[in-house]
Amino acid sequence: MEKRVSLITLGVDDLEASAAFYAALGWQREKVEETGIVVFNLLGQVLGLYPKAALAKDLGVEVPSTVGFSGMTLGYNVREKAEVTQIYDAAVAAGGKGLKAPHDIFWGGHSAFIADLDGHVWEIAHNPFSPPREDGTFQWGG
Amino acid sequence: MEKRVSLITLGVDDLEASAAFYAALGWQREKVEETGIVVFNLLGQVLGLYPKAALAKDLGVEVPSTVGFSGMTLGYNVREKAEVTQIYDAAVAAGGKGLKAPHDIFWGGHSAFIADLDGHVWEIAHNPFSPPREDGTFQWGG
Repeated sequence: MEKRVSLITLGVDDLEASAAFYAALGWQREKVEETGIVVFNLLGQVLGLYPKAALAKDLGVEVPSTVGFSGMTLGYNVREKAEVTQIYDAAVAAGGKGLKAPHDIFWGGHSAFIADLDGHVWEIAHNPFSPPREDGTFQWGG
Repeated sequence: MEKRVSLITLGVDDLEASAAFYAALGWQREKVEETGIVVFNLLGQVLGLYPKAALAKDLGVEVPSTVGFSGMTLGYNVREKAEVTQIYDAAVAAGGKGLKAPHDIFWGGHSAFIADLDGHVWEIAHNPFSPPREDGTFQWGG
């Protein structure tokens, strides 16, 4: 396999509500002809929102019944420390759930955890030793 | 927020076993000084493996008790249709669980679903109308 993730698909209960949540954080929804999906073009990959029940049906598995920590987080690294609080506040204002308020981490980082409307967990993080590159990409070790 | 996901962190039960699973699929583990994490540099972002219990503790939530569909999938889009079966077979051989064998989709795509050792779901997909670009990036609408 080449080194990429093409698509991150989040199963959601209310497509329009979830689309509004991510739009409120500043991401721009693509116009798509298909109904029943919402698409955001991110840096070199796509974030898709898709009804959770349809996603489970595609997989042939049970629909997840609970909203909770799924054992996976998506990380958004900021350029300036102050952005952690800005984005945390914006996400909570948009209906997200604050799981852990902005806090310093022992090694010098600063981070917060929020859950989106369906419980998908995001970490908003500032790593002063390894910031995003100017083009937004992030690689371990610089 | 700028348009990016910096980090995808998968909570795992057995760090070395999960590292071996992704290495078997062809991804190269980075050398990291910290113990307790495994890192793969992907295209413009990082995939991290981290003990599920530690991840839950960081978030201040319950450790997910079940391995199952979490309501999110990660998609890997291939360049050639035949790669879907190749990667599906390789993932199963490496200890992954085949959730849905390679199959044609009504709109002309071809896809398969697999779960990694901890139940994180990947879709391996061929979209003949919107293949990955030469540099590996993928955007909706070309």
